[in-house]
Amino acid sequence: MSQSTLSNLGKKGGKSSAETSAPGHPQVPRAIVVQPERTGRPSRFEKWMARRMLQAIGSPPVALVLWDGDVVCSAAGPPKVSVVIHDRATLLKIAVNPLFNFGEAYSNGQVELEGSLGDLLDAFYSNLPGSRSPGLMAKTENLLEGNSLRGSRLNIHHHYDIGDDFFELWLDPEMQYTCAYYPAPGAGLEEAQLAKMEHVCRKLRLKAGETVVEAGCGWGGLARYMARHYGVTVRAYNISHSQVEYARRRAAQERLDSRVQFIEDDYRNIQGRFDAFVSVGMLEHVGADHYDDLGRVIGRCLQNHGRGLIHSIGQIHAGRPLNPWIRRRIFPGAYPPALSEMVQLLESADFSVLDVENLRLHYAKTLEHWLQRFEASAGAVANMFDERFVRMWRLYLAGSRSSFLAGVLHLFQIVFARPRSNDLPWTRAFLYAAPQAQAGDPCNPAMC
Amino acid sequence: MSQSTLSNLGKKGGKSSAETSAPGHPQVPRAIVVQPERTGRPSRFEKWMARRMLQAIGSPPVALVLWDGDVVCSAAGPPKVSVVIHDRATLLKIAVNPLFNFGEAYSNGQVELEGSLGDLLDAFYSNLPGSRSPGLMAKTENLLEGNSLRGSRLNIHHHYDIGDDFFELWLDPEMQYTCAYYPAPGAGLEEAQLAKMEHVCRKLRLKAGETVVEAGCGWGGLARYMARHYGVTVRAYNISHSQVEYARRRAAQERLDSRVQFIEDDYRNIQGRFDAFVSVGMLEHVGADHYDDLGRVIGRCLQNHGRGLIHSIGQIHAGRPLNPWIRRRIFPGAYPPALSEMVQLLESADFSVLDVENLRLHYAKTLEHWLQRFEASAGAVANMFDERFVRMWRLYLAGSRSSFLAGVLHLFQIVFARPRSNDLPWTRAFLYAAPQAQAGDPCNPAMC
Repeated sequence: MSQSTLSNLGKKGGKSSAETSAPGHPQVPRAIVVQPERTGRPSRFEKWMARRMLQAIGSPPVALVLWDGDVVCSAAGPPKVSVVIHDRATLLKIAVNPLFNFGEAYSNGQVELEGSLGDLLDAFYSNLPGSRSPGLMAKTENLLEGNSLRGSRLNIHHHYDIGDDFFELWLDPEMQYTCAYYPAPGAGLEEAQLAKMEHVCRKLRLKAGETVVEAGCGWGGLARYMARHYGVTVRAYNISHSQVEYARRRAAQERLDSRVQFIEDDYRNIQGRFDAFVSVGMLEHVGADHYDDLGRVIGRCLQNHGRGLIHSIGQIHAGRPLNPWIRRRIFPGAYPPALSEMVQLLESADFSVLDVENLRLHYAKTLEHWLQRFEASAGAVANMFDERFVRMWRLYLAGSRSSFLAGVLHLFQIVFARPRSNDLPWTRAFLYAAPQAQAGDPCNPAMC
Repeated sequence: MSQSTLSNLGKKGGKSSAETSAPGHPQVPRAIVVQPERTGRPSRFEKWMARRMLQAIGSPPVALVLWDGDVVCSAAGPPKVSVVIHDRATLLKIAVNPLFNFGEAYSNGQVELEGSLGDLLDAFYSNLPGSRSPGLMAKTENLLEGNSLRGSRLNIHHHYDIGDDFFELWLDPEMQYTCAYYPAPGAGLEEAQLAKMEHVCRKLRLKAGETVVEAGCGWGGLARYMARHYGVTVRAYNISHSQVEYARRRAAQERLDSRVQFIEDDYRNIQGRFDAFVSVGMLEHVGADHYDDLGRVIGRCLQNHGRGLIHSIGQIHAGRPLNPWIRRRIFPGAYPPALSEMVQLLESADFSVLDVENLRLHYAKTLEHWLQRFEASAGAVANMFDERFVRMWRLYLAGSRSSFLAGVLHLFQIVFARPRSNDLPWTRAFLYAAPQAQAGDPCNPAMC
């Protein structure tokens, strides 16, 4: 399938504005009904290539079933999952560019699974060689997806503006589309998303009457939580038009609109000075070329006594791009920073880091819950979009879960302040004190 | 006072081995009784120079009193402290190289204070311009103090082998010469040093029967604590001969020598594989040129499920050398890393950071307690060494306290593991659970 055959996804019904995006921008490909071409038996070369593919990804316990029923396995033990490759062209494409074309083939139905997608992806990520460097192609692609003011708007539009009703099918009621915080592994998604917002507020040590600026506010759930439970006023920035509209609507319904202002603008245009800066799930979309911009913005907008928190997906090794299929089809322009890059961003802006917490297993759990809810609504999603869209999002959610579980991706919450501010909590015990925030009542977190 | 007049410090009594150090290595200068040369009134140029000095350090509320009684102030308000400069030569030396020669002049008694040294240093550090880059001289000096296997041994010998009886005068009974952890600001030093060791053990999630390697173990207090309270066996490395002898003696007295082994060797020679790696207060002596060495050592010696903790003084901006006087007279070869450098060290060795905590106010508090205890023993210290030694150490302790208080120095505890290890605590609440360790009883920390 060549790039030229791709076009915008035609959403069936719903109120998505995805169809309006700019020409030339990466788009979700049109659903394709595959007719496997079973043109003869695989050659010895094709079988050799299939074996090499398995070796190249660390010989996971996976079988490849070729179009004539031949099975190719790695020597590492009985396979957990079989990947049925329906035709010769698909095998060749995956061999040439496995990280991208496996996603394409899975989405198109050119490969199918016997066994669970989760098991396949867990096997893949947990067997990946540790220190593989990114290929040249991946680096080049990164340059094409810039995060200029206009590029960011297009990139964000691509993912977040495909329809609130779609996200409502499988997110929690507060529409938190970032890693939750599970007080215990058995907690539910709704409880864990509320606990995440509470954890963030406590780390920021918000006090009633303070002002908060939020960079990248999603559907506004955290902004509303901060205003409702901590009595602060919030200026929240977002470049997703449909998210800002949704956030304004809900704030008005919940009578929080006098204390929460949603601004459809880029983080680079943040104006004013605030007691706290918070950004949950935006840094992944900033791009390493713009970390200095973000550092300058935070330096400009935070009061001398101010506190800041950045919550972002991260990785171990700086400079490795996200999986190319995810970057092309799901998150154009996205890059997960290494923690050292996040810390450098703050050091360059003369901030001192107070606290870092790695919550990667919480993101794996969050994705597990999202995936369950997504599957429960798969029929509705197929009706909204098509089967191909369902397969793409299933692969993205399951692949992300496996990446966090295998330590390929991480989730860092990082708290910072100006180095001379001595308005610091004495220990972190207050983060773990019994809950104090009551619905509707502005209150202070337990401070020492 | 020229460099050539400096020679070894002759300790009066005690069992120091400082006199045995290698020729050519930086040494504590001989005590000098100063006879102020009051050679005429200060010139207009000298007064201008005194004013410029105050401006150059950010115009703190400090007065300079020249040798004829003339007072030079910055315009920033009434002075909190007056610095009496006894002679023209001292003014010139301080003007030429203030960061180094103020320390020399204070130690020699060529300057004296009206007011508190702590107030002077607080005023200095809290007025320092934020982003001053280090001078060329400082960089050159850094190169002269290498941390090769031999250089490290000399550097460590210089500071830590000057006599256990001296450190016993003002450290806690467990001889913890690193930042304590105060459960509350009013806690005492002894309680806070025990709490520090408990905090470190909990962060490492030690379990009875496990093995721990410690890099840079001081007088062995943490190694003994881990063995006693957590039932682990410890291999502890240190290149300070007198510290290792002391540590072995105490472990034998406390019948812990079957579970704690002290090895007089460099961290680069650590052998074996362990469940946990810990290093408290050594990274400051490793030097940035050797972070990769340390990363390789940790990568080699930690089991796949292992946990690690590094506790180190740090700073905001990478590459800035320690105050040159401290580096010359107190800690040759020392360099406080930026947090980004600590994180890079671990990322390069393919470790993932799980937790970072900045404890700089705890170090300011620790130094406050050390300083009080040091002052209470100043007479005994003067008898052991001389008055000049007392002034040098007073300046070092008070200057360090002010640096932590002003956010010039930081204290980072960083917890890490291999990225694929999913043997992780679910939250950090267990760190703040009620104490479980009982003296003499091996036990596990509260785990979730």
